[in-house]
Amino acid sequence: MGEEEGTAVNNPVGIHAGVWIGQWTSESTRWAIDQTLAAGFDLIEITATDVDSIDAAAVARAIQKTKLSCSVSLGLTFDADVSSEDSQIRARGATRLHHALRLAQKVGSRQLVGVLYSALGKYQGPASERSWRNSAAAIRELAVEARAAGIELALEVVNRYETNLFNEVFGALRFLDEVGEENVRIHLDTYHMNIEEPDFALPVAAAGDRLGYVHVGESHRGYLGAGNIRWAEFFRFESFSNTVVDPALSNTLAVWRNLWTDNADLAAQARASIRAHLGAAYRARARGQAARDDGQQSADGETN
Amino acid sequence: MGEEEGTAVNNPVGIHAGVWIGQWTSESTRWAIDQTLAAGFDLIEITATDVDSIDAAAVARAIQKTKLSCSVSLGLTFDADVSSEDSQIRARGATRLHHALRLAQKVGSRQLVGVLYSALGKYQGPASERSWRNSAAAIRELAVEARAAGIELALEVVNRYETNLFNEVFGALRFLDEVGEENVRIHLDTYHMNIEEPDFALPVAAAGDRLGYVHVGESHRGYLGAGNIRWAEFFRFESFSNTVVDPALSNTLAVWRNLWTDNADLAAQARASIRAHLGAAYRARARGQAARDDGQQSADGETN
Repeated sequence: MGEEEGTAVNNPVGIHAGVWIGQWTSESTRWAIDQTLAAGFDLIEITATDVDSIDAAAVARAIQKTKLSCSVSLGLTFDADVSSEDSQIRARGATRLHHALRLAQKVGSRQLVGVLYSALGKYQGPASERSWRNSAAAIRELAVEARAAGIELALEVVNRYETNLFNEVFGALRFLDEVGEENVRIHLDTYHMNIEEPDFALPVAAAGDRLGYVHVGESHRGYLGAGNIRWAEFFRFESFSNTVVDPALSNTLAVWRNLWTDNADLAAQARASIRAHLGAAYRARARGQAARDDGQQSADGETN
Repeated sequence: MGEEEGTAVNNPVGIHAGVWIGQWTSESTRWAIDQTLAAGFDLIEITATDVDSIDAAAVARAIQKTKLSCSVSLGLTFDADVSSEDSQIRARGATRLHHALRLAQKVGSRQLVGVLYSALGKYQGPASERSWRNSAAAIRELAVEARAAGIELALEVVNRYETNLFNEVFGALRFLDEVGEENVRIHLDTYHMNIEEPDFALPVAAAGDRLGYVHVGESHRGYLGAGNIRWAEFFRFESFSNTVVDPALSNTLAVWRNLWTDNADLAAQARASIRAHLGAAYRARARGQAARDDGQQSADGETN
C-alpha cells in the first residue's frame, strides 16, 4: 500500500458499472466486479434503469464475496416522471422509484442516487410550481420508505439539458428544504458543475454536510485531467464525508464521439487521479489543522 | 477615447439582438439599435429564425443610419434539417437557409452564422455518414449562393445537446474539408467550448485563419467573469481577424433560471470585459513582436 492509499479511507472511490458492461447477465456481473476490483475501486454503481433485467439476488451474492460495496443510481424518463402534472405519469415515476429502492435493498446498497426527482432529459420549458411540489412530495414519500430500509437518497444536480427543476446547488438545497427529510442529501457531479456553477469550491461548501454523493467526470466526459475541470479547486474541501467519488461516464448522455475506448485504462487512470487529488486534499487539510494547532498553542502561550 | 478603445479596431464587438428584443417591429428595431449604440457595440446580430416576421428593408434602413454593422444567425429545427435522411425535411432546411441568406443580403450583413448544418437540439442518436454528407452538400450549395452575394458562412461549433454532427473544432475542420468552399469558416462559442474542448486556447489555434466568428458566453450564460471560462487563456490568440465577439445569451437554450435581468447592465459589462481582454491580448502581442524585433536586431548586430 503506497502513501496515497492511506489518505482517503473515509471516501470509498467507486466506478459506474456502465464503464464495464451494458447489462447484468451472470457473466457480465462477474466481469464488472472483477474489473472493478482489478482497477482498485471500493464501490460499484449499479444503474437501476431496467430493474427487471437485473437478478438482484445473484448480483448481491457476487458482490458479497468481495470487499466491494455498491450504490444504485437512476434517472427517470418523461413517461415516468414524478415532477409531471399528469397523475398517471407521476404514478409510473413513483413505481419506478419504489422498484429502484427495492433493488438497492436487495443488492445491499445504502444509497439510491441520481435524478430521482425528474426525467433525465431536455424539457421544453421551465418547471411549474406544481411540478416542483409534485416532485418534492414524491421524494418525501420515497425518503420515508428508504429510511425504514436504512437507505439514504442523494439527488443529483444536473445541467439545464438534463432537468428543468434545479441546475445548481442552491436550487437543490431549496428543494431539500421543501422535501424536509433528513435522509435526503445532495449528489454533485463535476461535469454538470462545470456548466452550471460559478466555480468548483463553492457548491461543495454550500452543500456541506448535506453532500451525500459525488460523480467525478471531466468537462467532456473523457479522461480526468484532459479537460476544463479545475480539480485542485474541487478537491479543496474540508468535510467530504461518506462520499462516493465516481467517474460518471455514459454513452447515453449525448456523447457522439469516442472520448475513450479502453475502459480498463480509463478506470485505472480515473482512480489514480481521484486518489491523488483526495490525498492532496487530505494532506492540505492536515497541514492546515497542524498550522491552526500551532497557532492555538502560540495563542495559548501568549495568554498564559 | 480611452487607451483600451484603440487596441482592437480589427475586431468589431457585437451583441445578440435577443439581449434587447424578442421581435422586430419598427419600434423594437429602433430600441435594439439605440441600446446597442448606447452600450458601445459595433455590430448587432439578427436572428433569422422567423424570417417572415422581419421587415428586412426597414431594419436595413435603420442600421444604415448608424455606424453599426450587422450579422445574421440561424439554428435549424428538426422539421427543417439539412442533415436529415428524409429528403422533404432536408428540402425545408435548404429553403430556410436560402431565406436566411436573402435576409442577410437585404440587411447588409456580410456573414451568415450559427448552426446552419443541423437542427439546434438534442438528437436521439449519433449522426450517420449519410447525415454528414447530406449536410455538407447543403452547406456547399449555400456557400456557392453566398459567394455570389459576397457573404461568408460561419458554422457554429455547439455542445452535444445542441447537435450530433460535430461538437469540437477538429470535427468542424473535417466538415469544412468535406464542404470544400473557401467562404465557409468556423464559428466558436466559449460557452460550448467549456463543455467540449480540452481548453480555450487550442481550438482558436486549431481553427487559425478559418475562424470567422466568435460568440463570447460565460459557462452558465450569465455575466462574463462570473463563471468557469478561463478568459485570459481564450484571448491569448495571435491572429483573430475579421472576427465578431458576441455575448450569446438566449432564453431558448434551456436557461431555467434568471442569470441576468438588467439587459443594459449586462451589455455594458460584457462589452467592457471583451474590450479589456482584447486590449490585453493585443498589447501582449505587440510586446511579443517588439521583443522579437529586438532579438532580430541583436542577431543582425552580431552577424554584422
